[in-house]
Amino acid sequence: MAKEGAGMTEETEYMIDRHVGKDADCSADSPHDAKEMRAVILSGFGGLNKLRVSRKPMPEPQEGEVKIRVKACGLNFLDLMVRQGTIENPPKPPLVPGFECSGIVESVGENTKGFEIGDRVMAFVNYNAWAEVVCTPAEFVHKMPDRMTFAEAAAFALNFVTAYMMLFEVANLREGMSVLVHSAGGGVGQAVAQLCSTVPNVTVFGVASCFKHAAIRDSVTHLFDRNADYIQEVKRISPEGVDVLLDSLCGENTGKGLSLLKPLGTYILYGASNMVTGETKSFFSFAKSWWQVEKVNPIKLYEENKVIAGFSLLNLLFKQGRCGLVRSVMDKLLCLYDQKKIKPVVDSLWALEEVKEAMQRIHDRGNIGKLILDVEKSPTPLMASDSTETSEAGEEEEEPEGDNDSKERMPFIH
Amino acid sequence: MAKEGAGMTEETEYMIDRHVGKDADCSADSPHDAKEMRAVILSGFGGLNKLRVSRKPMPEPQEGEVKIRVKACGLNFLDLMVRQGTIENPPKPPLVPGFECSGIVESVGENTKGFEIGDRVMAFVNYNAWAEVVCTPAEFVHKMPDRMTFAEAAAFALNFVTAYMMLFEVANLREGMSVLVHSAGGGVGQAVAQLCSTVPNVTVFGVASCFKHAAIRDSVTHLFDRNADYIQEVKRISPEGVDVLLDSLCGENTGKGLSLLKPLGTYILYGASNMVTGETKSFFSFAKSWWQVEKVNPIKLYEENKVIAGFSLLNLLFKQGRCGLVRSVMDKLLCLYDQKKIKPVVDSLWALEEVKEAMQRIHDRGNIGKLILDVEKSPTPLMASDSTETSEAGEEEEEPEGDNDSKERMPFIH
Repeated sequence: MAKEGAGMTEETEYMIDRHVGKDADCSADSPHDAKEMRAVILSGFGGLNKLRVSRKPMPEPQEGEVKIRVKACGLNFLDLMVRQGTIENPPKPPLVPGFECSGIVESVGENTKGFEIGDRVMAFVNYNAWAEVVCTPAEFVHKMPDRMTFAEAAAFALNFVTAYMMLFEVANLREGMSVLVHSAGGGVGQAVAQLCSTVPNVTVFGVASCFKHAAIRDSVTHLFDRNADYIQEVKRISPEGVDVLLDSLCGENTGKGLSLLKPLGTYILYGASNMVTGETKSFFSFAKSWWQVEKVNPIKLYEENKVIAGFSLLNLLFKQGRCGLVRSVMDKLLCLYDQKKIKPVVDSLWALEEVKEAMQRIHDRGNIGKLILDVEKSPTPLMASDSTETSEAGEEEEEPEGDNDSKERMPFIH
Repeated sequence: MAKEGAGMTEETEYMIDRHVGKDADCSADSPHDAKEMRAVILSGFGGLNKLRVSRKPMPEPQEGEVKIRVKACGLNFLDLMVRQGTIENPPKPPLVPGFECSGIVESVGENTKGFEIGDRVMAFVNYNAWAEVVCTPAEFVHKMPDRMTFAEAAAFALNFVTAYMMLFEVANLREGMSVLVHSAGGGVGQAVAQLCSTVPNVTVFGVASCFKHAAIRDSVTHLFDRNADYIQEVKRISPEGVDVLLDSLCGENTGKGLSLLKPLGTYILYGASNMVTGETKSFFSFAKSWWQVEKVNPIKLYEENKVIAGFSLLNLLFKQGRCGLVRSVMDKLLCLYDQKKIKPVVDSLWALEEVKEAMQRIHDRGNIGKLILDVEKSPTPLMASDSTETSEAGEEEEEPEGDNDSKERMPFIH
């Protein structure tokens, strides 16, 4: 990693064809230079225009690391927050975003145990995942089952490990319990729904935008419109409330959520997507949100017999060194995958050059399941944008660059 | 209960012999009047002088209730808070304190299922336990194992159910984890230590006053002086912290406690004994403490992967109707008792008339295990008090009544 870091400081980053999308077979044409690779670069915190695809020095694996030829990368809501800088202690741009990928082991560093060249793997990466090649310590790398596709693998690790650990490590989900999940149509939401179905008689209350309801109705027991007063509707169905509440929104929902818990129920905050509103650069919104979030009095928890928890898989892995625990969870998940009890839901595949459109889709919460950056995919041809679909990004962009933001690509819907 | 309530409003309460302690065989002498019973009465919130033993109308079981001839009652730290009025929404005095007892079923109300006259039982009671006779709904009553004594039974229910539910329902204690418990020498502390020993390889960090260390050293893995900087000592032994932290103190300890948790660790507040300082009546100290307690930001929990919970068994039973869950926990506990894996620790037995001395002992944290009011016990003879042991109670009493507070009894140490 040190070597790669050094490379970054001497960044010779240059924009490859800005309208690369129009050149559908660009990546096939480019010479395969072993000293460089393509990567998505975030040049500074802010709007979509801060993202571009550039060439970067090829990373080489350090001791204990695995070098992966990336096939697919996962795109998460957190990546939007990274782009805006609305996370705690963001690294200094320019940087390569992305926290997970799948691919093939190309080489290993000294003293790297457990992996061989050619292994199909999925990996957690502490940034730098959105590239053709990634190096990451072996403890963050997991072998893929034979029948799992690279797109599925890139959709699997973060969402399913997060869902599993929240349900079974933090909340101790058991037969007969009930779970409410926000963003039921998202990657974690769909993983939660599938994992709940592995426990007998678990009721899942899902909250999602109306337009997703038809697609995800079968995955949950009850489905509510996120713009309606779902609190009242849940209380009508289950006056006592729910046993587990999974909140990726934060903000006003903390208090609402606690009020919806049964005694001994557990509220888990695992994201803060309410911190992302428009596309504007907002360096201070993390701090602002911190103060705006309703704080919890432990005596209230005592009076009401309630549990409140926070869960961040990336912090658990990269700040708190819990790789061993995560590996044991991954083993259980791969068992469930083998038994065909769970299967990652892929929303759509995008070329690296289409990262802006992919981000806009997740920002607009248009996805059902996971958005994947398919490194080998060529961008789809641009078409004239439909004026009724003017995006927030377009409206709030601080530094319009007159690039292809006014065009739209046809995403490759899986 | 309604009938008893009516009786309270026409309270004909009179002080029986104020110095009943001197008359060692008082209870044996008194005629057994079936229309009255002896009970501890709290005449108003405040110091020890608010407590006395009086006669009250005999309660009769209502529909679904069990009438219990009480043999022993449990005395808990919470009873001190009730006496001082430092709990949320305390009932209006005069009242009979006490939340648990053991005894023999004397009769049952209409439609009361599951109990017969003569059954040996232990019961949770929503006040009114410290009396010769108690009526309580059958769902709060549990049969005692044959070999369990009444004193053990009165020491069992609240402490062991609380300890079990915190460790296994809230915190999901598993092999290899670590638990830190405050007040390790108290009733809950000793129950926690015993229950931890039923799980392989659990490390117990106990915090207790130095003078208890010799007596409880074998029950825990590591023992710390509550007046020393145990946080640093725990971190020295276990730099990562602990998996479960059980706090009955509240106050400044919330923040300290959270800092001592491992990632995915659980902090459980199950009491607030720091709210009790002296013996002064302090109607506002509950509200004050509420505001003084450090509040928790959910985003901090997210960043640090931590869990904070509150647990109040009495609220769970009497406000939140979780009798069924508590019964299933009690069944598991009685199994462990039968297997001789757990055994309640009784600190000392006291006559009803000795309730002040018993309260002073728990206030001074002098107990190891549970203090029991033994309804059939005669008060021990008074002896001149040792001037070096002037109690806080004596010093801070607002309305000194010149009664036997200046005398001390020899407690019957079990």
